Amino acid sequence: MLAELKESVWKANLDLAKSGLVILTFGNVSGIDRRRGILAIKPSGVPYDALKADDIVLVDLEGNLVEGWLNPSSDTPTHIEIYKAFPEVGGVAHAHSTYATMFAQARREIPCFGTTHADHFHGPVPLTRLLVESEIAAGYERNTGRIIVERFAGLDPLEVPAVLVAGHGPFTWGRTAADAVETALVLEQTAQMAFGAMALDPHLAPLDACIQEKHFTRKHGPDAYYGQKKEDRRD
Amino acid sequence: MLAELKESVWKANLDLAKSGLVILTFGNVSGIDRRRGILAIKPSGVPYDALKADDIVLVDLEGNLVEGWLNPSSDTPTHIEIYKAFPEVGGVAHAHSTYATMFAQARREIPCFGTTHADHFHGPVPLTRLLVESEIAAGYERNTGRIIVERFAGLDPLEVPAVLVAGHGPFTWGRTAADAVETALVLEQTAQMAFGAMALDPHLAPLDACIQEKHFTRKHGPDAYYGQKKEDRRD
Amino acid sequence: MLAELKESVWKANLDLAKSGLVILTFGNVSGIDRRRGILAIKPSGVPYDALKADDIVLVDLEGNLVEGWLNPSSDTPTHIEIYKAFPEVGGVAHAHSTYATMFAQARREIPCFGTTHADHFHGPVPLTRLLVESEIAAGYERNTGRIIVERFAGLDPLEVPAVLVAGHGPFTWGRTAADAVETALVLEQTAQMAFGAMALDPHLAPLDACIQEKHFTRKHGPDAYYGQKKEDRRD
Amino acid sequence: MLAELKESVWKANLDLAKSGLVILTFGNVSGIDRRRGILAIKPSGVPYDALKADDIVLVDLEGNLVEGWLNPSSDTPTHIEIYKAFPEVGGVAHAHSTYATMFAQARREIPCFGTTHADHFHGPVPLTRLLVESEIAAGYERNTGRIIVERFAGLDPLEVPAVLVAGHGPFTWGRTAADAVETALVLEQTAQMAFGAMALDPHLAPLDACIQEKHFTRKHGPDAYYGQKKEDRRD
Repeated sequence: MLAELKESVWKANLDLAKSGLVILTFGNVSGIDRRRGILAIKPSGVPYDALKADDIVLVDLEGNLVEGWLNPSSDTPTHIEIYKAFPEVGGVAHAHSTYATMFAQARREIPCFGTTHADHFHGPVPLTRLLVESEIAAGYERNTGRIIVERFAGLDPLEVPAVLVAGHGPFTWGRTAADAVETALVLEQTAQMAFGAMALDPHLAPLDACIQEKHFTRKHGPDAYYGQKKEDRRD
Repeated sequence: MLAELKESVWKANLDLAKSGLVILTFGNVSGIDRRRGILAIKPSGVPYDALKADDIVLVDLEGNLVEGWLNPSSDTPTHIEIYKAFPEVGGVAHAHSTYATMFAQARREIPCFGTTHADHFHGPVPLTRLLVESEIAAGYERNTGRIIVERFAGLDPLEVPAVLVAGHGPFTWGRTAADAVETALVLEQTAQMAFGAMALDPHLAPLDACIQEKHFTRKHGPDAYYGQKKEDRRD
Repeated sequence: MLAELKESVWKANLDLAKSGLVILTFGNVSGIDRRRGILAIKPSGVPYDALKADDIVLVDLEGNLVEGWLNPSSDTPTHIEIYKAFPEVGGVAHAHSTYATMFAQARREIPCFGTTHADHFHGPVPLTRLLVESEIAAGYERNTGRIIVERFAGLDPLEVPAVLVAGHGPFTWGRTAADAVETALVLEQTAQMAFGAMALDPHLAPLDACIQEKHFTRKHGPDAYYGQKKEDRRD
Repeated sequence: MLAELKESVWKANLDLAKSGLVILTFGNVSGIDRRRGILAIKPSGVPYDALKADDIVLVDLEGNLVEGWLNPSSDTPTHIEIYKAFPEVGGVAHAHSTYATMFAQARREIPCFGTTHADHFHGPVPLTRLLVESEIAAGYERNTGRIIVERFAGLDPLEVPAVLVAGHGPFTWGRTAADAVETALVLEQTAQMAFGAMALDPHLAPLDACIQEKHFTRKHGPDAYYGQKKEDRRD
């Protein structure tokens, strides 16, 4: 069932591992079939080099198992909250990548200091609040998804396709599982460049709004002119 | 004798080298057969690419050679002290991995700043005291083991499977030699993330206790739900 | 048409990707045939592993397409301004390499702190000013080229073959596309070494002028004695 | 002539390149035949992947070419000064490795903060003074060797087999060319660990003398007990 989706999610998980963003079994990627309301996600705790396309687990948006002989990622309820709140999102990735996690641990958003950032994220990469004790005690992973959604009030999740969960790490997303992994890679690079720029100048101001806008709209939206003709572009 | 143990210790030593945590002949891994009271350990100063399973040395818990034509690692007495004090430990790894060693050299424990840390270590990664001159002059390696054990008064070594020896570097352990190496890898990643978080905010407070607890118990103990069914999980 | 130039530009783009200076489709390299006034450049947004020599686009110095079925890099007008102002330049490279971009984002030039820098750059690596709003609104990429050229008033572009565009990243150049890529690699290494030296001493003064001069002239100009006989040297 | 020496020096140069300590043509390694007073050294500016054993150049201790069709490394006079002053040295390596060069550029010696350092260097890694203008104007490379030798007054070059040339970078040495390269690798690792420890505590004091002494003598001298029987040990 949904063999193509499972294949693409499997491949996206392997790409995440090959990118160097995860060690051991850290991290997971999912994709969704919006028509059926079913998502495909990495099984929990399975090493990437042993992972087969058939190991990918199918669950519905209430978290019920649809197909698979392994437990889905323990972060599945977080993915589900993202899919439920952001209808245009088709794939979600979670990694504990080094520099993005440093910002999450220091509880700082990533300001836009340059065009590398502006090319991919429309504004700073936002930081969630911390969960309170009752939100941790029951429904922890679902509540992690909820504070992500809460933080995006007023934000377009496809214009800012990443978040830092305070004290935890980044989640990224996009139209497909492959897009979510690509954004995870860009986020890590962006985080490292911001880290270094802040070391060179701890009081550095963000890039002017007009050039941020220019770079974002150069790659995204109706006036985009980066890349090849629209049908071929991934953004 | 104990061919299976020697094979697993040999493999764990190679995994340590492949992980990028050691250069040259730095680092060593051992495993123990608890029933016989014999441990298998890397020979001293032998390059990893020349190491064969048969080169692994067997010694007893008094440090006497049981089998092997090479000298055991000069850190063998440290490993022995750990095995003697922590009866549930089945494997020990020692590396001079870059970020963990920075903390050991700066004589700072690694605070728990995020869930990556909390998933693996129940509380901060502890730091030993420095050895005094008489402890260095005689029985240096055994005394290194003793200050590790001394530091773990009141701590469960399987809940905090790592230590930083002040001015030296990390030791990690687990139920098997492979577990000890895996923890060495997680420790290095954790140390780098803490290093960066502290650079972003030198006065950063640790993560709230309740989320630390949540993440640790999600992966460890009777209520763990991370990963696959209990028989398959490694933790 | 110009098959040899396209081949060398294609190879230089692949070398840039292999060097680790770019991720995804970040970065682009061009080369010019001065006699015909035609430049060869990477197509926009095409992944490096799918790039073929035939995909390289030919454009003239007014930016008109001469040959190719893909859009040229969106940075083409920046390359053109550099070629028009610096007649000895035969190749241009653009990357968002990590450490050079940190300096560009922090809006700091790279001072000459050591002989690694002095061997390749005659003085600090300069930083452009920021673009003003009207320069961003219309002709953004061409204006990026213009502020580079503006910054080089009084500088010899072959003696200082690199610039940091404020808030953006580095451009490098040389007699050929291959030279431009090699300089991109040296710039990144130089930037990382300067970053670390400034972390060790935030008030560090540049290297004395006389040793800067010595190292530069050891490798460049009529009295150069580094490397092999003149015909074989690339600088 | 001296085919074995040329082969070992060629291999040591390739090992330096493979170690990741050099990019492009940065760095060079030499070895000496003490009986004949002839040294073998990398030719100047030749890329490592094109280097053949036969390209290695032979020169005498006055710097006269003995054999070879390429120019020797421009740093040859520095190597010669080291060989002339330190009769037990059989190999010399020069790299612009990242962290060691940061210290050289910041004009700071590398204090001994841990046992990784103490295992290989008996005391801090020393820093030379800067050259004065007249020393740069004439005999620059020879004078670089002379300030290294000057700095080692009262030091045993085999107990401290490395130096940082102020504003330039490290030179390392040992009984053979291979030893010099191995020390270059250890120096880089040591420098990175010191860099990080100083970031965690800018006022960090060096390791106590007694443990420094213990670790050094554990691996070096008549009471060494690290590694295998003396004939097999490389230190």
